[in-house]
Amino acid sequence: MEAKSLIRLLFLILSTLLLLFFTFLSLPYAPPSNKPEILDCATYSPWCTSKNRIQHKKPNLLKNPLPTPTRHHSSDVPHHPLDPLTVQELNRIRAILASHAPFKSSPYALHSVVLQEPHKPLVLTWQKGDPLPPRKASVVARVNGSSHVLTVDIDTGEVTQHDADADTWLSSGYPMMTVEDMTSATWAPLSNPDFNRAIIERGIDLTDLACLPISTGWFGKSEENRRLIKVQCYTTKGTANFYMRPIEGLTVLVDMDTKEVLEISDKGWNIPIPKAANTDYRFSTLNEKQKIKLVNPISLEQPKGPSFTVEDNHWVKWANWEFHLKPDPRAGMIISRAVVRDPETGKLRNVMYKGFTSELFVPYMDPTDAWYFKTYMDAGEYGFGLQAMPLDPLNDCPRNAYYMDAVFPAADGTPYVRSNMICVFERYAGDIGWRHSESPITGMEIREVRPKVTLVVRMAASVANYDYIVDWEFQTDGLIRVKVGLSGILMVKGSPFVNMNQVNEQENLYGTLLSENVVGVNLKREHDSPDNAPRRSYLKAVRNVAKTEKDAQVKLKLYDPSEFHVINPNKKTRVGNPVGYKVVPGGTAASLLDLDDPPQKRGAFTNNQIWVTPYNETEQWAGGLFVYQSQGEDTLAVWSERDRAIENKDIVVWYTLGFHHIPCQEDFPIMPTVSSSFDLKPVNFFENNPILRIPPNVDKDLPNCKFGGHTNAAYDLRWVTKEIESTIAGPL
Amino acid sequence: MEAKSLIRLLFLILSTLLLLFFTFLSLPYAPPSNKPEILDCATYSPWCTSKNRIQHKKPNLLKNPLPTPTRHHSSDVPHHPLDPLTVQELNRIRAILASHAPFKSSPYALHSVVLQEPHKPLVLTWQKGDPLPPRKASVVARVNGSSHVLTVDIDTGEVTQHDADADTWLSSGYPMMTVEDMTSATWAPLSNPDFNRAIIERGIDLTDLACLPISTGWFGKSEENRRLIKVQCYTTKGTANFYMRPIEGLTVLVDMDTKEVLEISDKGWNIPIPKAANTDYRFSTLNEKQKIKLVNPISLEQPKGPSFTVEDNHWVKWANWEFHLKPDPRAGMIISRAVVRDPETGKLRNVMYKGFTSELFVPYMDPTDAWYFKTYMDAGEYGFGLQAMPLDPLNDCPRNAYYMDAVFPAADGTPYVRSNMICVFERYAGDIGWRHSESPITGMEIREVRPKVTLVVRMAASVANYDYIVDWEFQTDGLIRVKVGLSGILMVKGSPFVNMNQVNEQENLYGTLLSENVVGVNLKREHDSPDNAPRRSYLKAVRNVAKTEKDAQVKLKLYDPSEFHVINPNKKTRVGNPVGYKVVPGGTAASLLDLDDPPQKRGAFTNNQIWVTPYNETEQWAGGLFVYQSQGEDTLAVWSERDRAIENKDIVVWYTLGFHHIPCQEDFPIMPTVSSSFDLKPVNFFENNPILRIPPNVDKDLPNCKFGGHTNAAYDLRWVTKEIESTIAGPL
Repeated sequence: MEAKSLIRLLFLILSTLLLLFFTFLSLPYAPPSNKPEILDCATYSPWCTSKNRIQHKKPNLLKNPLPTPTRHHSSDVPHHPLDPLTVQELNRIRAILASHAPFKSSPYALHSVVLQEPHKPLVLTWQKGDPLPPRKASVVARVNGSSHVLTVDIDTGEVTQHDADADTWLSSGYPMMTVEDMTSATWAPLSNPDFNRAIIERGIDLTDLACLPISTGWFGKSEENRRLIKVQCYTTKGTANFYMRPIEGLTVLVDMDTKEVLEISDKGWNIPIPKAANTDYRFSTLNEKQKIKLVNPISLEQPKGPSFTVEDNHWVKWANWEFHLKPDPRAGMIISRAVVRDPETGKLRNVMYKGFTSELFVPYMDPTDAWYFKTYMDAGEYGFGLQAMPLDPLNDCPRNAYYMDAVFPAADGTPYVRSNMICVFERYAGDIGWRHSESPITGMEIREVRPKVTLVVRMAASVANYDYIVDWEFQTDGLIRVKVGLSGILMVKGSPFVNMNQVNEQENLYGTLLSENVVGVNLKREHDSPDNAPRRSYLKAVRNVAKTEKDAQVKLKLYDPSEFHVINPNKKTRVGNPVGYKVVPGGTAASLLDLDDPPQKRGAFTNNQIWVTPYNETEQWAGGLFVYQSQGEDTLAVWSERDRAIENKDIVVWYTLGFHHIPCQEDFPIMPTVSSSFDLKPVNFFENNPILRIPPNVDKDLPNCKFGGHTNAAYDLRWVTKEIESTIAGPL
Repeated sequence: MEAKSLIRLLFLILSTLLLLFFTFLSLPYAPPSNKPEILDCATYSPWCTSKNRIQHKKPNLLKNPLPTPTRHHSSDVPHHPLDPLTVQELNRIRAILASHAPFKSSPYALHSVVLQEPHKPLVLTWQKGDPLPPRKASVVARVNGSSHVLTVDIDTGEVTQHDADADTWLSSGYPMMTVEDMTSATWAPLSNPDFNRAIIERGIDLTDLACLPISTGWFGKSEENRRLIKVQCYTTKGTANFYMRPIEGLTVLVDMDTKEVLEISDKGWNIPIPKAANTDYRFSTLNEKQKIKLVNPISLEQPKGPSFTVEDNHWVKWANWEFHLKPDPRAGMIISRAVVRDPETGKLRNVMYKGFTSELFVPYMDPTDAWYFKTYMDAGEYGFGLQAMPLDPLNDCPRNAYYMDAVFPAADGTPYVRSNMICVFERYAGDIGWRHSESPITGMEIREVRPKVTLVVRMAASVANYDYIVDWEFQTDGLIRVKVGLSGILMVKGSPFVNMNQVNEQENLYGTLLSENVVGVNLKREHDSPDNAPRRSYLKAVRNVAKTEKDAQVKLKLYDPSEFHVINPNKKTRVGNPVGYKVVPGGTAASLLDLDDPPQKRGAFTNNQIWVTPYNETEQWAGGLFVYQSQGEDTLAVWSERDRAIENKDIVVWYTLGFHHIPCQEDFPIMPTVSSSFDLKPVNFFENNPILRIPPNVDKDLPNCKFGGHTNAAYDLRWVTKEIESTIAGPL
C-alpha cells in the first residue's frame, strides 16, 4: 500500500458478454394448463423488491406503492420460442416440483427458474405462425443443504433431468442468492444480544438500523463448506441516504442457511458516524429556496408516435432492426435474434444471436477487516435482474418510451411482476448520421445531412448503493452500442477526520475525504505488468485469423492498435470482402489485481478485454454458474484454457468493459452518471452505406408543440437571467 | 510495407488544444470609424466559400444561394474584449494597410487578420459596462514573395509592429493558404497543354473536370524556398460525388505564387476511372422507390424556448455556465472565459480561459507517387474555420438551435459573412444525470432520477472530401466534453481491380476495395515502440505533481492507469482537497509513424496524448504559426523540449484526440459519422454534487405536441410494418 497516496482508484469491471450464435437444447411443447397464481406487489412482498441487500425496522410499505404493471400478466402465453416463462408456466413448474422428490418431503428454495431455450437451429428456422418448440424450464434449487440443477418439462409435467449435489461436482460455489436469503441475513444480527449492545452503545436506536447483506467472496479454507454472508449496518436517522451514515468497522458473519451469527467483528469504536446533514438527495426534502431550476422543459417528441412496435410482448421492430427482448433475473435483460434488414435485398440478416451482461465484478480493495472481502459479483451473487427496480417514467427514460415488465419467481416458485423493468425508446440527440457540404465554387451547392436517430433499450439495476444503467443502442447504420452508466451512492467508509489537514503523509485513508468523517473508498492498484503476457491480436489487419481460443485472448495495446473483426469467410460482398462485424473497444480499463489473488481468480474474465470461445451451451456465465463463494474453477478463463478451435466455427465473443472510479466530492451525496461503452460495428457487412437513402428532416415533418403546463411554470429559471456576479479571479 | 495485409489503418489525429489561462497583449481602444464594405455572398464569391480545394468548370452559382446571414453585420460593434473583428474594423484595417509600405507599392495578400486579444488580466477584470480595452489586429501577409507579421492599432491607424521575412526568422514554413491561393492553384494545370492532353486522352471532357489543391507537406531540399502545391483531378460526369471518380496517378506540381506548372506526373494510365453509378448521395437524385423512411418524425422540443441566451452576439449564458464564443478562420471556433456558477455561493468560478482546436494532422500513408505527400495539417494549411460551411438547420443541428455567423476577411482584406457557421443548442438525449432507487423493503420507496440536459456548441468543417463535426458540450454537473465526429466522403484511390478475387497475396492495395475500381486508402502502420520512451504520468494519484513540461508529456498506459488532474494547490474545499479538473482521455489512438519521419516531425504534437506548457502567448498553434511546407521547428514538441517549470503556474493543457479509420464498404459512397471525445471533469472543484437540487421531470412541464405536417406524412414507414421475411440462416 502506498501510504502517501490520498486519492486512489476504485476499480470496477463489468463484463458485458456478447454471445453470438449461442443456443440451448429443446424438447416438445404443450400449452401451459396450470391455474394462475401471482404475488400482489401493491402490498408488501420481499419478492417484489429488488433492493434486497437492505433490511430496515420500520417498513412503511403502502405509502408509495410500486407502479401498476403495464399489463395484467396472469393470462400471458408465450408467442416466441425465446419468450420467458409466464405466470402460468411458473405456477405449473411450482406444482411439478412440489410433487418431485426430494422437494416433496423437505423444505426447499428455488434460486433460479428460467426458460431452457430451444436449440439454435430450431429458433433460427422458427417463423411466426409455426407451433412453438416444446417449453422447458431450467431450475436451480437448494434442498437439505445442497444445490440441485433440474430440467422440467412443462408439458409432460416431468422432471427430465436432476443433478443433485451440483455444488460439489460443478464447482465450489453456491447458486445466486434468493431475495429471501438476503432479507433474512439482514435480520439475523438482531437476534444476537452482543450485536444489539454494540448498536445501542453507539447511541443508535435499533429502529433506525438499516443493514446490508454483503457477499463474502472467497479467501480460504475457513470459509468453505457453508453458505456465509457478512452483514454491515447504517443508521437511517435524519436521512434517506443511510449509506452515508455507516456504523464503521462492525461486521457480522452469518450462516445463510441456519441464520446463525458466527462472528461479530467490532473495530470501529473510534470512528464517528458521519452527520446526516446534506446527505439527503430527494427533491421532496428541499425547501423552495434550495431548489435549482437550470433549464426550460425539453422533450423528445414524436406526435405521430414512436417508429417501433413490440409484437407479442417481446419482439421489437424498429427501422431496419428486429430483435427479441426479455428480462432475466440474473443477466438483467437478454437481446436475442437481432437481425437487420439489408437495404439492397430487403431481407433480414442475422447479426447477433444473443447478447447480455454475463457478470459484473466490483472489487473494492481496502485491505482492512471490514472492507477486504468486498469483491462483488453482482450478477452471479445478487442477480442483476432481481436488482433492477421499476424505471421512473419521464426521468429514467423519455416520454416516448415503452415499458416492459418482468415476471420472476420467488424462492417458493410463486411468480411476481416487476413492473417497468425495461424501457425502449427512440433517441434523437441532435447528432448527425452522415453529412457532406460542397462549395458553390464547384457549381454544386450541396449540403446533404441526415440526423441520427437510434433505438435505446435500457434497464437500471440498483445493487444496494450503486445504480447501473445498461443501454443497448441500435443505430440505423448497423452499429450496436452497449453502454453502461454508473450512478447512485458511493459505498463510503467512516473516518475519524473532518479535514484533509488532519491527515498526515503516513496516514492511509484509502480514499477521498468526501465530507466530514466520510471517505470514498478506492482501490489500491496492484500492477499487473502488461509485459508478462504479450499476446497477438485476435484479428489484426484481417489476415491474422485467430484459430484457437488463446489466439483470441486479447489484451488491448494502445501503441499496437488492431481491429477485431468477426467475419464469415464463406460469405462475401459483391467486390469480394468477407462480411463481418467488428468489436470497437471502449471502457478499456484493465484489471490491476495479481492474477493469483483470490478475487481475481474468481473474476478472471477481466484478465483480457476480448475473449472468443466456441459455442458451448454450458458456458454462459463468465464467473461460473455457481458464483457465490466460488474459487474460480468454472470461469471463462478456465474454459478458454482448453484452447479450442474457433476458426470458421459458431463462436461467442466476450467483451470486458472496465471503469476506474476515483470518488470525488462531486460524487457526494449521490454521484452524477459516468458512462462507458463499446460498439459492434458492421464492416463490409453491407454493400455500401445502409442509410444512404433516408430523407433529411424538413420542417413540416416536425411537430408543433405548445407548453403542456397547467398554468405557469413551476419555477422560474433562477440565475440564468442574472447579470454576471463578480468572478473569482485566478485559476479555477 | 506488409504486402499481404489488405486492410490497413487510416490514421488521423486531431489535436484538440485546451488552453487554460491563455492570453494576449492589449493596447488602447477607440471605436471603428471606417465606412463598411462587405462582399455579397448571395452571388458568386470565392471568399464566401469554404469548399475551396476544388475547382470546377461549370459553376452554377445562383441556383442555390447560401442562407441569408442571421443578421446584417455591417453595423456590428464589439461588446466584449474578446469579440472578433467586425466588418467595420476589417475595413479599417484594410485601409490602414493599403497606405503602409510595402503594401502601398506592391501587390499583397492577407493570409490572416484576427483580433489580437488583450492581456489576460485585462480580460479577467473586465466587466460588462466597462469601456473595452484597445482593439488591435494581428495580421499575416505575403508581399513580394515573403511573409510579414504585423500588429495594427485600429484606433490610431498605426502599424505598431512589422516583422518582414517572418518565414525566414520564424520557421521554414509559409502562412495558411488564402482561399485565392487554393482557387488559383486548381486552375493552373489547365494552362498546360500536356495536362489538357492527358485529360482528353483519357476520354474526359475538360468541362467535367474538378481539381483539388493538395498541400505538399515537406519531404526534402528540392521542395524548399518556394510555395508549392499539388493538384489532382476528378471527373464530375454523372455524379455530384466526383471524389469517387479519381483520375488516378495524375499529379501536377504548381508554384503557388507564380501559378507555374513545374511538373506533371502521370502514372495511372492503366487505372480505369471508377464508375459513377451509386456514388451520388443527394436525396434529390433518388427516385421515389429508392427512398427509405425508417423513422417517424422525432424532435427536441422546447415550447418555452431554449434556456440559453446569447448576449451581445458572443456571450452565451446557459444553466450554470457562461462563456464567450466566436468563430476563427484557423481554429474554427474559440471558447473563452468559461465560468461555472457554484451552487453553494452563487458565484461564477473560472474553469477554462480559452479552448479551441489547435491543429489537425491527417497523414495518409500510401507510399506511391500520387499519395505519399498527403499528410494534411488542416488548420494551419487550409484554415479549419475557412472550411466550415453553413450548417443545415434541422439536420446539422436540431430545431431548437441558435446560429452564429462568422465575418472573415478575403485575401485583399474585404470582409465577408459566413452564415450559420456555428450552432448552439440544448440536448436531451434521454440520458440520466443521476439516479438512485431504493427498495420498499426499507420502508423508503425512493426513485429519484434527474434527466440529463446539456448544451452543445457545434461547427462542421468540410475540408474537401472529409467533414469534421466539432462539439463542445457543457454539462450542468460541471463536465465539458469535446467531441469530434468524422463523416463525409473517403479520399479514394482508383484501382485496376473490380473484385478481391483479382487481388493476390503479393499485391498491395493499400486499402479496402470499396466498390469496383475504388480503393479506400489506409495507413501502413509503422510501429513506434512504446518501450523507447516510457514516461511518468503527469499527475498520478494526485501526489505525483508534474513540475516541468517533460513530467507532463503523457503517453497513456492502459495497464498503468492514471488520472490527470489540473489543480490549484492554493485553493481548497471545505474538507481540504485542492480544487481541480481532470482530463478524462478518450479517442486515445496514438501516432504510429517513426518520430523522425518528416510528416511526424511536423505533426509531433501527436507524440503524446497530453502535454502541459506554461502560458506563452506565442505558443498557440501546435504545428507552428507557419505550417505550410514547414519542417517542424516551431511545434509543441520543440517548445516543450525546453522543459520549463509548470508547477503552480498559469498553464496550458493540450490533448491529442486520435482516430484510426479503416475504410469499409459501409463508408461508400459517404461515410456514417464516427466520433470520439475526451472530457474535462470537475474533481473536488465543487463541495458536492452540483446538480443535487435540480427537479425531476413531471408531465405537466413537458410540451403538448401535434404533428406539424401540412396534410399527410410525406412517406409511409416502409418495412417497419412488414412481416419478417425469410432470414438467412447461419452466421451474419
